[in-house]
Amino acid sequence: MPGQDFRSDNVSGAHPAVLEALVAANQGPAAAYGDDAWTDRLARRLAEIFEREVTVLPVATGTGANALALAAVTPPWGYIFCHSGAHIAVAECGAPELMTGGAHLMTLPGAAGKITPGAVEGAIFREGDVHANQPAAISISQATEIGTVYRAAEIAALAEAARRHGMALHVDGARFANALVSIGASPAELTWRAGVDLLSFGATKNGCLGAEAIVLFPSDRTAGVAKELTYRRKRGGHLLSKGRFLSAQLEAYLANDLWLANARHANAMARRLAEGLQRAIGVAAHEPVESNQVFIALGDVVAAKLRAAGFLFHAWPGIGAGGVRLVTSFDSTEAEVDALAATAEVAAGR
Amino acid sequence: MPGQDFRSDNVSGAHPAVLEALVAANQGPAAAYGDDAWTDRLARRLAEIFEREVTVLPVATGTGANALALAAVTPPWGYIFCHSGAHIAVAECGAPELMTGGAHLMTLPGAAGKITPGAVEGAIFREGDVHANQPAAISISQATEIGTVYRAAEIAALAEAARRHGMALHVDGARFANALVSIGASPAELTWRAGVDLLSFGATKNGCLGAEAIVLFPSDRTAGVAKELTYRRKRGGHLLSKGRFLSAQLEAYLANDLWLANARHANAMARRLAEGLQRAIGVAAHEPVESNQVFIALGDVVAAKLRAAGFLFHAWPGIGAGGVRLVTSFDSTEAEVDALAATAEVAAGR
Amino acid sequence: MPGQDFRSDNVSGAHPAVLEALVAANQGPAAAYGDDAWTDRLARRLAEIFEREVTVLPVATGTGANALALAAVTPPWGYIFCHSGAHIAVAECGAPELMTGGAHLMTLPGAAGKITPGAVEGAIFREGDVHANQPAAISISQATEIGTVYRAAEIAALAEAARRHGMALHVDGARFANALVSIGASPAELTWRAGVDLLSFGATKNGCLGAEAIVLFPSDRTAGVAKELTYRRKRGGHLLSKGRFLSAQLEAYLANDLWLANARHANAMARRLAEGLQRAIGVAAHEPVESNQVFIALGDVVAAKLRAAGFLFHAWPGIGAGGVRLVTSFDSTEAEVDALAATAEVAAGR
Amino acid sequence: MPGQDFRSDNVSGAHPAVLEALVAANQGPAAAYGDDAWTDRLARRLAEIFEREVTVLPVATGTGANALALAAVTPPWGYIFCHSGAHIAVAECGAPELMTGGAHLMTLPGAAGKITPGAVEGAIFREGDVHANQPAAISISQATEIGTVYRAAEIAALAEAARRHGMALHVDGARFANALVSIGASPAELTWRAGVDLLSFGATKNGCLGAEAIVLFPSDRTAGVAKELTYRRKRGGHLLSKGRFLSAQLEAYLANDLWLANARHANAMARRLAEGLQRAIGVAAHEPVESNQVFIALGDVVAAKLRAAGFLFHAWPGIGAGGVRLVTSFDSTEAEVDALAATAEVAAGR
Repeated sequence: MPGQDFRSDNVSGAHPAVLEALVAANQGPAAAYGDDAWTDRLARRLAEIFEREVTVLPVATGTGANALALAAVTPPWGYIFCHSGAHIAVAECGAPELMTGGAHLMTLPGAAGKITPGAVEGAIFREGDVHANQPAAISISQATEIGTVYRAAEIAALAEAARRHGMALHVDGARFANALVSIGASPAELTWRAGVDLLSFGATKNGCLGAEAIVLFPSDRTAGVAKELTYRRKRGGHLLSKGRFLSAQLEAYLANDLWLANARHANAMARRLAEGLQRAIGVAAHEPVESNQVFIALGDVVAAKLRAAGFLFHAWPGIGAGGVRLVTSFDSTEAEVDALAATAEVAAGR
Repeated sequence: MPGQDFRSDNVSGAHPAVLEALVAANQGPAAAYGDDAWTDRLARRLAEIFEREVTVLPVATGTGANALALAAVTPPWGYIFCHSGAHIAVAECGAPELMTGGAHLMTLPGAAGKITPGAVEGAIFREGDVHANQPAAISISQATEIGTVYRAAEIAALAEAARRHGMALHVDGARFANALVSIGASPAELTWRAGVDLLSFGATKNGCLGAEAIVLFPSDRTAGVAKELTYRRKRGGHLLSKGRFLSAQLEAYLANDLWLANARHANAMARRLAEGLQRAIGVAAHEPVESNQVFIALGDVVAAKLRAAGFLFHAWPGIGAGGVRLVTSFDSTEAEVDALAATAEVAAGR
Repeated sequence: MPGQDFRSDNVSGAHPAVLEALVAANQGPAAAYGDDAWTDRLARRLAEIFEREVTVLPVATGTGANALALAAVTPPWGYIFCHSGAHIAVAECGAPELMTGGAHLMTLPGAAGKITPGAVEGAIFREGDVHANQPAAISISQATEIGTVYRAAEIAALAEAARRHGMALHVDGARFANALVSIGASPAELTWRAGVDLLSFGATKNGCLGAEAIVLFPSDRTAGVAKELTYRRKRGGHLLSKGRFLSAQLEAYLANDLWLANARHANAMARRLAEGLQRAIGVAAHEPVESNQVFIALGDVVAAKLRAAGFLFHAWPGIGAGGVRLVTSFDSTEAEVDALAATAEVAAGR
Repeated sequence: MPGQDFRSDNVSGAHPAVLEALVAANQGPAAAYGDDAWTDRLARRLAEIFEREVTVLPVATGTGANALALAAVTPPWGYIFCHSGAHIAVAECGAPELMTGGAHLMTLPGAAGKITPGAVEGAIFREGDVHANQPAAISISQATEIGTVYRAAEIAALAEAARRHGMALHVDGARFANALVSIGASPAELTWRAGVDLLSFGATKNGCLGAEAIVLFPSDRTAGVAKELTYRRKRGGHLLSKGRFLSAQLEAYLANDLWLANARHANAMARRLAEGLQRAIGVAAHEPVESNQVFIALGDVVAAKLRAAGFLFHAWPGIGAGGVRLVTSFDSTEAEVDALAATAEVAAGR
């Protein structure tokens, strides 16, 4: 029987190559706290991938990566501008507020899960006035929380707005690989070349057990940030002692472009699922399916029957009756997505 | 050539059984964020081990476990009393201060790495007076940072002092297994039966890749703490999405008493090392070798020659000329410790 | 020449009776930190005014009062629901976030400067779910930031919503006296009888030099809060050593119902100003003038000419062309408000 | 009957000239939040007093001044080195920890209430190592908590140590005037010329109602600090709306050298008291009486009889039997101090 769990890409396990790398890394002693060969190689590999010098800090969770990265560029009295559906705003229980010492997330509406320079600048008020929090950072999710993908030009426009107000630009890249392959952009194009200062480089959802990396693109704007981040990471409890096991995951993830292959597959499965559902029940996805998530209004009857048949997924408010989110993964199979579409077709009585 | 790295038990990799458990856990989808079968089984296993109901929150680092556990029982204006050499005070870059919102660690001297009720109560001042921080928690390391082990009666006496001042008692059990097997006490005897409220249950140093658990022993004193801890863990970025991979490590660690066997071996290697060094250079360890750490004044010449021969270890101030810490692990071998002793003997010219 | 400053009620000085009380309080030594006769009498007086036992903590600023009061009932992972124009959200530079340890202000739109139970409950999501902040407090401004006044029934409805979700209800009463006299309600009716847990009792704007009080209405919901607040106040630097000079201000403010008389006068001046402007330029105030603030779209020409004539006031966005806020005070005079209206009439060319 | 209250200089009221200034400041409207003529004049006056440009931020409490000043130069992972008896360490309920976001106060012993460069540097460990907090600031009390006074050379030596480790030097000047007149030094000599970066300029204890000022001496080391402090002050609830009433106090305090005259008087009264007690009971003060505090071991009998006779003072541990602190003030009289000495003489049965 195929898997029926479409709740999130984090219900998947790890890619076998990643597990093999863990086993392979278990050879003899290695210096603790990231002072190891795996971490060195990881940093070099990421520099290669991003086509420039980068600062890399592996951590075990995306929430940790986001909160630490934002704290590095946001004073306690800062504003962080993000989409109203941003993971940092709705699904991290205030981690950015903890790590920044109480900064405020200013959430903005925006079509297709994206924020715009206009929305950000329209929300800025009392700049330079001590009575109000001050602009400090813009944070975007790539892919977005609704499955779309920011283009380089969109990011560059946000970066320009950030510069105008002395802000840093952060990308929550929990699904960064899915975004990259979706539009065929290079890692550099979607980050520092477009003005991104910090990236939470996600890997857990796309094949690791639990491994992410804060990637800092050093510049005049972020002088001192790299060193500060090392203290923040330790202080946050996010510096793993046997660090090789984080870096080994990430190394395997990046080797042979496994990360891109995994993302391509997950994206393809999402498109196949969306197309299958459209054929099956005549309903299009709520947004263009640009990554590995399908948001769709199944209708209450179909949604209920799918659940009864054992399919697992999260209800999604605000996109119509029987609105749900369906997430595919690097290990989703055609049989699995086809089974869901077929069951939906029966449920719809077509 | 045998391993020569005695810097810490965290330079070791993972026990093969733990890695096998990771591989075995990589089967199909599983609910994220700890709502999985591995985590359920882990909680039941720890309840069995501790002979009572416990609340279990797996996390990836000991610093995370300590800081979150302390935050759960310490208001921002609290005092946490600990030994001046406590890991929380000297090696966590202020993690407890971050997670508590600014509590103060009041460090105390104490023989054999231990604090006493007298030292704690002697340091309490202005109790109930708004001008001063207020007693909130006592935290001890078990085994201690100097390799000794608190007996149940010592812990009970600290717990009584804690009760007299409305404080909780926390144990940093980074080397909890080493302490247990050292004195042949049961987990219950060294924790809740002696009055411990929260334990950072360490596993990383003794055979896992990166897995610890906050173990809360619910009582009237800790009502509400269990629920709060779940928010604090998430907010701290310490709730892993693919939680099965944390719990699977811990499950394998506890299965077949692997944890105790590992600790017994590491302790035996430390004793063998201490005895070997005493024979080799005529110097006894600085403290009784009750766990897997040997603190010893090698003399500057011997220390230098050992380093020159490739042995790795940390210098340790305050215990005499050429003072060093030598840490053994679950995978240390007799050949390795004998090699160090033999090299020391040559170095000493005996 | 009459005063021309309508920027805020805090541009006024102090009422002479308040200054006289300061001078009178300067007699001999008095115990520091609020352990004085003035503070004792103040607590008794406020208990009388509120017709029940209350806990009173004088502080020097409204921002301090708000942030400390909210911190006392909001964990670091809490949500505080408030109007999008709330002083705590737009004019305190993140003070609540500082004092709570990083809680999130969830701002809500609402007509007439008010929030409703429906708006609050509509914004609650993921209740009990560790991934999201949790409902902790509702905070309302009384009078509101747009000059209107919550009725007892409106407050009671918010209190019920608060109870349903385990939240406390806080009132930012920077202009509490203005609200009271506006609708002829008693202090009890607009606070604890309607379900309010904590009040920032404002006095600075209405005749003091710098004196506010956190008033806590103890209940089962707020057990322990009174004691905690004393530590929070000290820790926040808000416990004045020569506390008599805070309490003496407040005592004089409350004596002979000076506070109510001052508020009645300020409110009357605001109404007179609004009526005068309506006659003068044919424009009604943007909201009913229920306290001592007039929000009105003067038109750009009139606004500019008034400024040119020396009148001072703040522009107010979102209420039309030439939108401004005009604030009257306990010491505003009929001549002053009439002069503004007369100048507006000339400016409007009527 | 003369006053009998020697508990602290903060049991005194305000100097009449300060109250007169408050009354005089109560004339018409003035811009709020420190944008007023009084505050401008205060800044100019302090620049004159310190013989250089300074940044001045008035606040209402010394705890607020200390915590904000330290927060401006200390990251959350910083160490603040101070004497074990420092007010910031024992009498502010963790205010520095709150405002810094969790920095650690590293307390040091030291003769005569002073810390030395050697003590500070001896306590620094793991500099640059992410596992430990990092040196950020040295804070000294002037006059010290035991009534002595740091000389310029002592301060300069601490400043050099601070520079060597990238730290700022802060002075808690709650009794700064008392220190100045004690040794006849100029304000510049005891601050920036000796390398001080920030001063909590106390005035409350020496004649104000409640007014202090953070004085920053801008330099390369403190670039950006002045602006940050304005946000921190607001966010801490320490920016008073009717700011003229803070600045007017300070202006009067500084006018005609009232502050120095007050301090000279208080110091003289302390010396007279110490001399009187030595004659009366044959016991010398515990430390040289260099400011307005006398620490003395009265013996239990004399202490008890003085209390029975109505004298008020705090017991002081660690200085011998019947150890007490006796504090004089700007308004202490010869009759008052002589009465205490005379009563002690009778109590001692001499």
